Amino acid sequence: MNKIGGKVQMILYDDHLIDRSEVKIDIEDRAYQFGDGVYEVIRVYQAHPFCMDEHLARLERSAREIYLQLPYEIEKIKSLLSQLIEKNNLQDGNIYIQISRGTAPRQHGFPKESRPLIIAYAQPNQRPLQDLKQGVRAITTQDIRWLRCDIKSLNLLGAVLAKQAAVENNAKEAILIRDGKVTEGSSTNIFFIKNGQLWTHPANHLILHGITRQVTLSLAEKLEIPVKQEAILESQIPEMDECFLTSTTMEICPIVQVNDQPIGNGHPGPITRKLQLEFEKQITQLHTVVN
Amino acid sequence: MNKIGGKVQMILYDDHLIDRSEVKIDIEDRAYQFGDGVYEVIRVYQAHPFCMDEHLARLERSAREIYLQLPYEIEKIKSLLSQLIEKNNLQDGNIYIQISRGTAPRQHGFPKESRPLIIAYAQPNQRPLQDLKQGVRAITTQDIRWLRCDIKSLNLLGAVLAKQAAVENNAKEAILIRDGKVTEGSSTNIFFIKNGQLWTHPANHLILHGITRQVTLSLAEKLEIPVKQEAILESQIPEMDECFLTSTTMEICPIVQVNDQPIGNGHPGPITRKLQLEFEKQITQLHTVVN
Repeated sequence: MNKIGGKVQMILYDDHLIDRSEVKIDIEDRAYQFGDGVYEVIRVYQAHPFCMDEHLARLERSAREIYLQLPYEIEKIKSLLSQLIEKNNLQDGNIYIQISRGTAPRQHGFPKESRPLIIAYAQPNQRPLQDLKQGVRAITTQDIRWLRCDIKSLNLLGAVLAKQAAVENNAKEAILIRDGKVTEGSSTNIFFIKNGQLWTHPANHLILHGITRQVTLSLAEKLEIPVKQEAILESQIPEMDECFLTSTTMEICPIVQVNDQPIGNGHPGPITRKLQLEFEKQITQLHTVVN
Repeated sequence: MNKIGGKVQMILYDDHLIDRSEVKIDIEDRAYQFGDGVYEVIRVYQAHPFCMDEHLARLERSAREIYLQLPYEIEKIKSLLSQLIEKNNLQDGNIYIQISRGTAPRQHGFPKESRPLIIAYAQPNQRPLQDLKQGVRAITTQDIRWLRCDIKSLNLLGAVLAKQAAVENNAKEAILIRDGKVTEGSSTNIFFIKNGQLWTHPANHLILHGITRQVTLSLAEKLEIPVKQEAILESQIPEMDECFLTSTTMEICPIVQVNDQPIGNGHPGPITRKLQLEFEKQITQLHTVVN
């Protein structure tokens, strides 16, 4: 766990890179005791971060929504993450970054004096090519999370329990249901296609406003696929022609079965394929433009 | 922060006591990244823990509800906490104990291999005598937390934001409102008295089943005060004769004002006083019986 490709893993700690073995998290770090912090996962393709600006803008927004003052300007954080990618020689994988409100004697209200702490590290990871090709299975489960799912916070136990329910049911994702309606996946956004139209939950306080969700909506516009940002009922899922999930690490991934029922003919559908193809172009463009 | 009464603070880490400076929390500890763990705060009066068995039973239940296997039997944890109190020479204060699911490469589902980690420490603290005597002010705010508030988990951001709203409004506590009804406080349970009858939210998934709440219900029974475990509407608060909060650290504390309206005559009421007196006896008994 401490090494990437035989090298000692370097961690971004505050504003400098240090050996993982030197990182020291205090027991009164508010992320440890309250989940009082925010995070992002940024995809890196061939050493190039994908949508870094969008991720950092969301990080800034999440922090603002919980009144957490970022310790540095976004531009500086961006530069630190670039150093992290470089020093770890990360080719394909993710950058995980989290910012906690810092360390202070435990009390629920914000501490008068605490310095927010940035931690970031690189995780090598390959694209989930088989899942992207064949599609995955999902289950449905109740959405028991809090009412500010638009904040990408460290309070993830609801998502953890939902994902675990999926894993135990041999599924890749849990589709969350609140008041009979589909909100999103435990760590993904969910889209449906019916009669050529794309449906997904509106970007309000009940879902995370996914970066890949946003990219997908742009691609749909480009491809002139009509979009309705409206929740569908759980009971409507079996009637859908196609279904897919989006996330930073899973990209645009077909869902071919929900619980015990196939979606459409049980194989990835044509509109999902079109969107995947366009997404693929975005990634390729990324290398081409930057290189 | 590292010393109690001039001595180096000893921390319970797994099953042994170590210097705080030696404690090492990993960045991939699931408590740090997901809030994936449970906790308890146990009051210590004159070196005697209060309701330790009840707290540890709840800890065991919270862990079970999130499928976290405690690393040790409750009896062993109890013995470790007693050592912690003794070695830190804690007279009056709290024991904070948390158990995380352990350290593993980040993914939402439970790791196949991870060892849950116990951390506990002692905090010297005096009883809030002035608040207990004079009563405190509370505000109301929306309850945005998840739907398993009966689990004492580390996902506390909703409670943190509510408490901070109270602090900024010069109040001691935020009374949480869900669907127009009072659930509980951000870190306390809430009771009302109307026409000699005690009202409090039922112990379901929307509130934490407080130990002091339970003690209070027993005392009410002993004093033959009728109890209704039913939620009251936010709009009914101004009509209440008395109001108080209960918690491990705040005990039974009168609430004399909610938002800008006094409760009753704006002073602690007679039934609240009776219950406080009985609670006081419990604490005294604790010393007498054990000594």
